[in-house]
Amino acid sequence: MKTESDTDAIAQARQPHETKRRGAELSSLAQWMREHQDRFEAQAAGALPSATREPQRLHRAMRYAVLGGGKRIRPLLVYASGELAQADVGALDHVALAVEYVHVYSLVHDDLPCMDDDVLRRGKPTVHVAFDEATAMLAGDALQAEAFRVLAQAPLAAAARLDLVQELARAVGTDGMCGGQAIDLEAAGRVLEPAQLERMHRMKTGALLRASILMGARAGHLEATALPALERYAQAVGLAFQIVDDILDVEADSAQLGKTAGKDKAQAKATYVTVLGLDEAKDRAEQLRRTAGVALHETGLEASRTNRLLQLAEMIVARRS
Amino acid sequence: MKTESDTDAIAQARQPHETKRRGAELSSLAQWMREHQDRFEAQAAGALPSATREPQRLHRAMRYAVLGGGKRIRPLLVYASGELAQADVGALDHVALAVEYVHVYSLVHDDLPCMDDDVLRRGKPTVHVAFDEATAMLAGDALQAEAFRVLAQAPLAAAARLDLVQELARAVGTDGMCGGQAIDLEAAGRVLEPAQLERMHRMKTGALLRASILMGARAGHLEATALPALERYAQAVGLAFQIVDDILDVEADSAQLGKTAGKDKAQAKATYVTVLGLDEAKDRAEQLRRTAGVALHETGLEASRTNRLLQLAEMIVARRS
Repeated sequence: MKTESDTDAIAQARQPHETKRRGAELSSLAQWMREHQDRFEAQAAGALPSATREPQRLHRAMRYAVLGGGKRIRPLLVYASGELAQADVGALDHVALAVEYVHVYSLVHDDLPCMDDDVLRRGKPTVHVAFDEATAMLAGDALQAEAFRVLAQAPLAAAARLDLVQELARAVGTDGMCGGQAIDLEAAGRVLEPAQLERMHRMKTGALLRASILMGARAGHLEATALPALERYAQAVGLAFQIVDDILDVEADSAQLGKTAGKDKAQAKATYVTVLGLDEAKDRAEQLRRTAGVALHETGLEASRTNRLLQLAEMIVARRS
Repeated sequence: MKTESDTDAIAQARQPHETKRRGAELSSLAQWMREHQDRFEAQAAGALPSATREPQRLHRAMRYAVLGGGKRIRPLLVYASGELAQADVGALDHVALAVEYVHVYSLVHDDLPCMDDDVLRRGKPTVHVAFDEATAMLAGDALQAEAFRVLAQAPLAAAARLDLVQELARAVGTDGMCGGQAIDLEAAGRVLEPAQLERMHRMKTGALLRASILMGARAGHLEATALPALERYAQAVGLAFQIVDDILDVEADSAQLGKTAGKDKAQAKATYVTVLGLDEAKDRAEQLRRTAGVALHETGLEASRTNRLLQLAEMIVARRS
């Protein structure tokens, strides 16, 4: 949990005359983030199958993968977007669990030797290192099934739950995360055009981040007129997140990241830094932060309702891990 | 497609005086199976992402895994159970795709080197041999997401679709298929009690077969009084299928099976044959066939409605591949 350094970073990026007001806002953001990260952790600990239940090794692996780590960006986006749409927080818990289960399953599979072959994740040994490869694969598979199960059980009307299931399935499948990972595999060692790179990232990480924001809103009651602008916010934030990830892979060290730094270069991956260069990648992230802010304004909703999503967009671009 | 030899086998297992009547019934079963296998194949070919769409390698691997092979036992159970419940066949197509996608994803992942490390499946090289391990893993992951997507899009009321999503998620997760596979992993090289073995198989293969039958019925309108008996049928058929699989692993050769024969023994797996012995395993399969027949009778439905499921139970026990 790097909320302290994140908020420092945002404060530093501001002009002096803004610092005091932003300082108060950010301290309230840091508190809100901690509360919701803690809430998510408690929900996940309660919802995941108990480590004492058979098959214990699988359940231990699933809990190891999900609990006690991660910035919980996707759950935070769910809660913030759900607050904007005045959703019931109990329903948002289900949505937050579903998107984080999917995110975690993708990390567990991605870290396997046949993919990125990584040994460090969220500051701990990866699941296949702590357990074994077969268990890691099954834990990922089971987390995907759990994601759909927990989503289908949200305390919402049947039609709303079904919408959420469809939104998640689209974000995970070949038009979303899995498709983006496949393009990433095919692109290793090849030179990509900026447009191809953007398409890959819109699918690989952008689709699930976007879905987190839209699903949070769908769990509540969002004015239909606000939806297109919220979609634009979600697109911008999804892409900005990945650009910053690519920048951090170059600029941060493994201890900061809790995962292996410098691995994009080692694996000759196409990233925003390799394709655009570091400075232009930073400019693009900053530009997307502004796009996200404008989009929130264009929802036509009061600033008091959109403010949390604005803060999260700023945090996502300013983060250092 | 081994329908000819399956129906021969059933006919041979009968007494001479029954042969003529059963011969006519079985030829009608063989025709019904071919029609529905062809229907499923056409549905899957149309529903799966096109091989010419990006990411092509992923889509090619998904189509390679699903199309042109397999007995389609689960789709057949869906169609038969759906007919019993007078379901719309267009809705059953979605259910059949969903259960078969899940089954295929589990085969693709199960065949990977970190699991069973198998090179032959449905008479073809396994997906990681024909493509590569990373693509095989992603194809399995994407097929799971596709299963939930296609199910959530079935032409049924939202509440019914949601029921189906929940039923499938339960059958796939740690209380079902993934949990059973994890128990199987832990059990390798160990001696299991018959009750432990049965529990493992009820989860590993039984849960999805059972779900196929119940989901087919849920897609239509089944008399509530018939449901408990249909559940007993589904339990019996799910378990009988696995016992026969274990018997065939010993008695059939790889060419018949289209997958590597004798592999349970080579991997020191606990099976019905190793735990009960061959003769007792055959007795148990026959006993479950009778249980399935009695359960169908106890649904209180006319024989004309339950007959197809009865024939499928007999085919599942008598099959030679």
